Amino acid sequence: MAERIRLGMVGGGMDAFIGAVHRIAARIDGEFDLVAGALSSTPERAKASGDALGLAPDRIYADFREMAIRENRIKNGIDAVSIVTPNHMHYPVAKEFLSRGIHVICDKPLTSTLPDARKLAKLAHASNALFVLTHNYTGYPMVRQAREMVAQGELGRLRVVQVEYAQDWLSEAVETTGTNKQSEWRTDPERSGAGGSTGDIGTHAFNLAGFVTGQQPEALSADLQSFVEGRRVDDNGHILLRYASGARGMLWCSQVAPGNENGLRLRVYGDKGGLEWGQEDPNYLWFTPFGEPKRLLTRGGAGARDVAARVSRTPGGHPEGYLEGFANIYTEAARAIRATMAGEPVPDDVIFPTVDDGVAGVAFVDACVRSSKRDAAWVKLA
Amino acid sequence: MAERIRLGMVGGGMDAFIGAVHRIAARIDGEFDLVAGALSSTPERAKASGDALGLAPDRIYADFREMAIRENRIKNGIDAVSIVTPNHMHYPVAKEFLSRGIHVICDKPLTSTLPDARKLAKLAHASNALFVLTHNYTGYPMVRQAREMVAQGELGRLRVVQVEYAQDWLSEAVETTGTNKQSEWRTDPERSGAGGSTGDIGTHAFNLAGFVTGQQPEALSADLQSFVEGRRVDDNGHILLRYASGARGMLWCSQVAPGNENGLRLRVYGDKGGLEWGQEDPNYLWFTPFGEPKRLLTRGGAGARDVAARVSRTPGGHPEGYLEGFANIYTEAARAIRATMAGEPVPDDVIFPTVDDGVAGVAFVDACVRSSKRDAAWVKLA
Amino acid sequence: MAERIRLGMVGGGMDAFIGAVHRIAARIDGEFDLVAGALSSTPERAKASGDALGLAPDRIYADFREMAIRENRIKNGIDAVSIVTPNHMHYPVAKEFLSRGIHVICDKPLTSTLPDARKLAKLAHASNALFVLTHNYTGYPMVRQAREMVAQGELGRLRVVQVEYAQDWLSEAVETTGTNKQSEWRTDPERSGAGGSTGDIGTHAFNLAGFVTGQQPEALSADLQSFVEGRRVDDNGHILLRYASGARGMLWCSQVAPGNENGLRLRVYGDKGGLEWGQEDPNYLWFTPFGEPKRLLTRGGAGARDVAARVSRTPGGHPEGYLEGFANIYTEAARAIRATMAGEPVPDDVIFPTVDDGVAGVAFVDACVRSSKRDAAWVKLA
Amino acid sequence: MAERIRLGMVGGGMDAFIGAVHRIAARIDGEFDLVAGALSSTPERAKASGDALGLAPDRIYADFREMAIRENRIKNGIDAVSIVTPNHMHYPVAKEFLSRGIHVICDKPLTSTLPDARKLAKLAHASNALFVLTHNYTGYPMVRQAREMVAQGELGRLRVVQVEYAQDWLSEAVETTGTNKQSEWRTDPERSGAGGSTGDIGTHAFNLAGFVTGQQPEALSADLQSFVEGRRVDDNGHILLRYASGARGMLWCSQVAPGNENGLRLRVYGDKGGLEWGQEDPNYLWFTPFGEPKRLLTRGGAGARDVAARVSRTPGGHPEGYLEGFANIYTEAARAIRATMAGEPVPDDVIFPTVDDGVAGVAFVDACVRSSKRDAAWVKLA
Repeated sequence: MAERIRLGMVGGGMDAFIGAVHRIAARIDGEFDLVAGALSSTPERAKASGDALGLAPDRIYADFREMAIRENRIKNGIDAVSIVTPNHMHYPVAKEFLSRGIHVICDKPLTSTLPDARKLAKLAHASNALFVLTHNYTGYPMVRQAREMVAQGELGRLRVVQVEYAQDWLSEAVETTGTNKQSEWRTDPERSGAGGSTGDIGTHAFNLAGFVTGQQPEALSADLQSFVEGRRVDDNGHILLRYASGARGMLWCSQVAPGNENGLRLRVYGDKGGLEWGQEDPNYLWFTPFGEPKRLLTRGGAGARDVAARVSRTPGGHPEGYLEGFANIYTEAARAIRATMAGEPVPDDVIFPTVDDGVAGVAFVDACVRSSKRDAAWVKLA
Repeated sequence: MAERIRLGMVGGGMDAFIGAVHRIAARIDGEFDLVAGALSSTPERAKASGDALGLAPDRIYADFREMAIRENRIKNGIDAVSIVTPNHMHYPVAKEFLSRGIHVICDKPLTSTLPDARKLAKLAHASNALFVLTHNYTGYPMVRQAREMVAQGELGRLRVVQVEYAQDWLSEAVETTGTNKQSEWRTDPERSGAGGSTGDIGTHAFNLAGFVTGQQPEALSADLQSFVEGRRVDDNGHILLRYASGARGMLWCSQVAPGNENGLRLRVYGDKGGLEWGQEDPNYLWFTPFGEPKRLLTRGGAGARDVAARVSRTPGGHPEGYLEGFANIYTEAARAIRATMAGEPVPDDVIFPTVDDGVAGVAFVDACVRSSKRDAAWVKLA
Repeated sequence: MAERIRLGMVGGGMDAFIGAVHRIAARIDGEFDLVAGALSSTPERAKASGDALGLAPDRIYADFREMAIRENRIKNGIDAVSIVTPNHMHYPVAKEFLSRGIHVICDKPLTSTLPDARKLAKLAHASNALFVLTHNYTGYPMVRQAREMVAQGELGRLRVVQVEYAQDWLSEAVETTGTNKQSEWRTDPERSGAGGSTGDIGTHAFNLAGFVTGQQPEALSADLQSFVEGRRVDDNGHILLRYASGARGMLWCSQVAPGNENGLRLRVYGDKGGLEWGQEDPNYLWFTPFGEPKRLLTRGGAGARDVAARVSRTPGGHPEGYLEGFANIYTEAARAIRATMAGEPVPDDVIFPTVDDGVAGVAFVDACVRSSKRDAAWVKLA
Repeated sequence: MAERIRLGMVGGGMDAFIGAVHRIAARIDGEFDLVAGALSSTPERAKASGDALGLAPDRIYADFREMAIRENRIKNGIDAVSIVTPNHMHYPVAKEFLSRGIHVICDKPLTSTLPDARKLAKLAHASNALFVLTHNYTGYPMVRQAREMVAQGELGRLRVVQVEYAQDWLSEAVETTGTNKQSEWRTDPERSGAGGSTGDIGTHAFNLAGFVTGQQPEALSADLQSFVEGRRVDDNGHILLRYASGARGMLWCSQVAPGNENGLRLRVYGDKGGLEWGQEDPNYLWFTPFGEPKRLLTRGGAGARDVAARVSRTPGGHPEGYLEGFANIYTEAARAIRATMAGEPVPDDVIFPTVDDGVAGVAFVDACVRSSKRDAAWVKLA
């Protein structure tokens, strides 16, 4: 194994859920070493968080710009940076690192506004550095297998896409209690963007459906709601999808559905068969060829294919979970980064969500908000 | 036990699925005796079907009008009639019996057109006879419990309704093969009405949601498809719902979703909790009070309430199914018929779908079709 | 359809669970009419129960002997009788009817003692009347399919049988509260026999395993417990099984396992594949050919075979349950009775549990009790 | 965060399943750095495996004794060693490291013979170094919660323990094909010990039951089989358990049950309630207080307790799996090692399986084999 990739992190200080997830994901396959961080914009928090993670004192930063500048200059500075700030900071942070040739691994949604997303895409395309977006659910082995099965025509011509992402943690106005930081920025349009549930989880559902089906809707009709009084962004969304191929879909996202923890679920139906997958039981993929009994394909089991096996670590029945799926994005990123550092093309089979997927996600949120304001009128996506 | 109610049947000859279901449902609790039938409009089929069921030769009819007239005249003629013809015949058949004071138990959807539905409702309201519509899924004990839990406020203020009814039996153009009679009339707009999947199963989903939530949407937006080439009615529908209370919903109906046999599923979420129920596993009701663990309430089990117990026959773990749920509609009808025959009011706790529910269902189909023709514009329901 | 079979019933008065089940099972397919009964040995209860069921006053009996004698003499007397008394009465009651050529449908276990069982078998074999034992779980369509799949070698050579039947309703000493009649006689060795859970539900598990595998163990080792203080029969049993073929098994029965309602579950493994079935979700049969993905075979679905379809009433996804499975035993009995009444041989494909199955079940209980008393020593069965 | 613990590994060269698992588990929480290894006893394989893992060339050993000696001498030598060899090597390897004060993390079963196990226990007790046995299933958060719930009396007095561990990967004689190294040593009594499935997975089931119930059986009766022709160890075991408390249990282990991937499942019943947990869906714990509806307790969800939360990384609905459960053992070990290195007592809440648990496991295998040879006679465990 070559030397580990030197990783920095912006955001993700103490108590931030997603920062810790990124750090574990980066560690699981031993491809990265976290060596620098601007973990908080509050200097004391940045310092304390960096110490807790064992960073060298001179690589703990309170200012991401300073970090980008210095890490770019020093010997053995970071090769890549993980951006796990609130959404509105993705663009300015990514810009600093991309412009210095430092690879970026960025949480979703890409940005808080569509103009930012487009600017960032332009930057990323112009940069020599890679841009990886952590739509982590595409890292699950059985999701990858689903994608391959669709691509190979096992469902036939696609007709119906049913995708949903239901949670319940925002069922009450927790953002007003002062006890839940995440809920504060995730329901603040300045920081999260115009979409609430649509941005936070709808983008995942949208991305997952696109990833598996290989198709993007050309238009949508969205009916968004803010059920919790005083909430400034949507907390539930009902969305119809139309595809150029003639396929049709429904997308439901909700953060106010009691009994749903993290219920991302995709069902895809074609004229030859159907597939069903749920994130909470991610090792299972249900496949029904029309007219035959339903089959339970398991990660690591008899029905798992190479594309799933390549990103699996354990045999069937030894469940992998959210962190391993997330780690697969990091490990794919590592393969791409190593190839790039070696001056080689990224291997063909490396799969990770790109800045363009990110733009599509932000465009989805933008379209949802526009459609909903116009009484769920059909709005083009493109 | 008093004497059995004398039942006739129109439609439901040999090979008809739903006729046999009605007959079993009528038998399960021993409240009815089938004594007459116009089981087919083809005389030979009518005769053969009647013989197979052991009907007396003089009570086997080829013409429902003749049956209505004669059964009304003879001593010990039928008290009630089950109508299990294709949809377009519900209205003319029901009219004959209602007008003679014979109670009607009619399959859904109520009629094939909205004008027919309204005329039938007027007739039914004017008649002394009862009109029972077999939206049989409202007969399931745990559905009734769900309804009571919502009514008693255990979910709080309702926010989101997710209802779906997915099948796969029309994934191919089986109606053109000459081997499947049901598919022929169910995809023929002259006989089934303007809606295909919306009429056949969408009405069930719509009715179930209304039954459990106690609310009817005031508007809907529908995107209907006919995926199978040459099909003359919709075989898939994506529908958004808006309720006057502020609640919002999605309804998906499909007959082209491989892997789905009879997937009617309802999920209801309020600000205090959520409920989930699926028809294929009908003895289970999942209940989550917000902030507490999910509970599995089972028919006959510790969490089952009186309202469920009253329409149950077996203890927990001894599964009841589709036929028992259907039988509950018949047995409720029997209670109402007996009270009516005795000149008494129908007991308060008797629950069955009415002609008005039927009008609402046909109006739902009508609205779906109108909305879909107008590019899924919002259409009032009322 | 020919005239209905005239059925009598002994036992099954008001509040008796299993009597009502038998009556519904007899009605579902319209093959029987209940016309006489000795529903209780208490004359007032017998009368009240008979009236409630609409029996003619002169065919309500308080004494089963009187009923057997008179029904045998009168014109249009009963053709068959259902025996649903406590276990110790099965033998004397069956004897009266069998000896008069009246067909017997008897609840399980066959008798409360092994000598009684053997005497009853002798009587039944000598009689012209049929003897049907309601090991009702063998009536489930997917159980019949499992049996056929094993017989046809789809599992290969059988190795392991895992069968269990777990309930929780006797977790406390409910038999001492005076509020639960069933628990009283079912825990009274004089009425139920020497086995408690072994007799009441262990016999079902034992019978089911034998039915599906086509094999009977030749020896067992049983460790029985009476966990509830003061209980006079076992309420939990752990049993090892050995088959002449070399297969081995485990059987667990319990009535003190909180959270289990009626958890009869069978798993069978051979060198080519495995099958799993659970009574609480009886429409599903899981089949894994070794080295292939698991398949979900559903009653009425693509994987269901003729043997299952023959005893099904509804399409896939329209769940049948406990009562339909029970009704299948009655309807098979009806076919056999009709053939017998017509002087014809019973059709080859008619399947119902016989008096010999009943002897095997009582011998199982007897062996369990003997083994357990000898510290779980191996005891022959045969 | 303090410096990482320096870890060595013995065994676990290329293609070894469990070695890779240990390495990931050690990485997940960032507590360990793998810095040395005797990954194979074949020098070329040892070298290639070490290189692949990025070990420094001078810390790649072909001989574990040499590794123990040198690592003990050099500056910054390893603090701890993971032993992932075939079972018969656990003892000699552990001895070398323990005797030099190097902490040992050892795979299960402890040893291949009971005398070895006892000698190793003596060594471990005498050593200043810690000994951690990777009965990894005790690392699952909901297993820990189950244990606490039992300990706190929520099930009342325990009555019944049902534990099983079923796999199918040895359904055929794969060990004779030359294609599956693992199957070779795991079915070779010289390397794995006298037990096959009992040693390989039965010990896990036995350990899990003991961990959750807080009780060890005092006697067992075992009926072991070698179904695959020519197999030299058991591949299926049926075992009855007796506890001093009066509780009784059944343990089934099998490697020849088609359709079972890694089916470790525990059910525990007391006079107040029942618990059910399955390893393949490890984020769920089913709890039924007697007389109440079943509750689904989820890792990270509303029903999860501190004891589960402490060893969780993600919120509810973000599934953790096998590797995270395994990592919990490593991270608990890290806490103990750090305390020990600091001269402090191991914190009270640190939980990991010990050498004594290992002795109990090997004694279990020994008892099974002895009992089975004596026709499943009861054999003392202690």
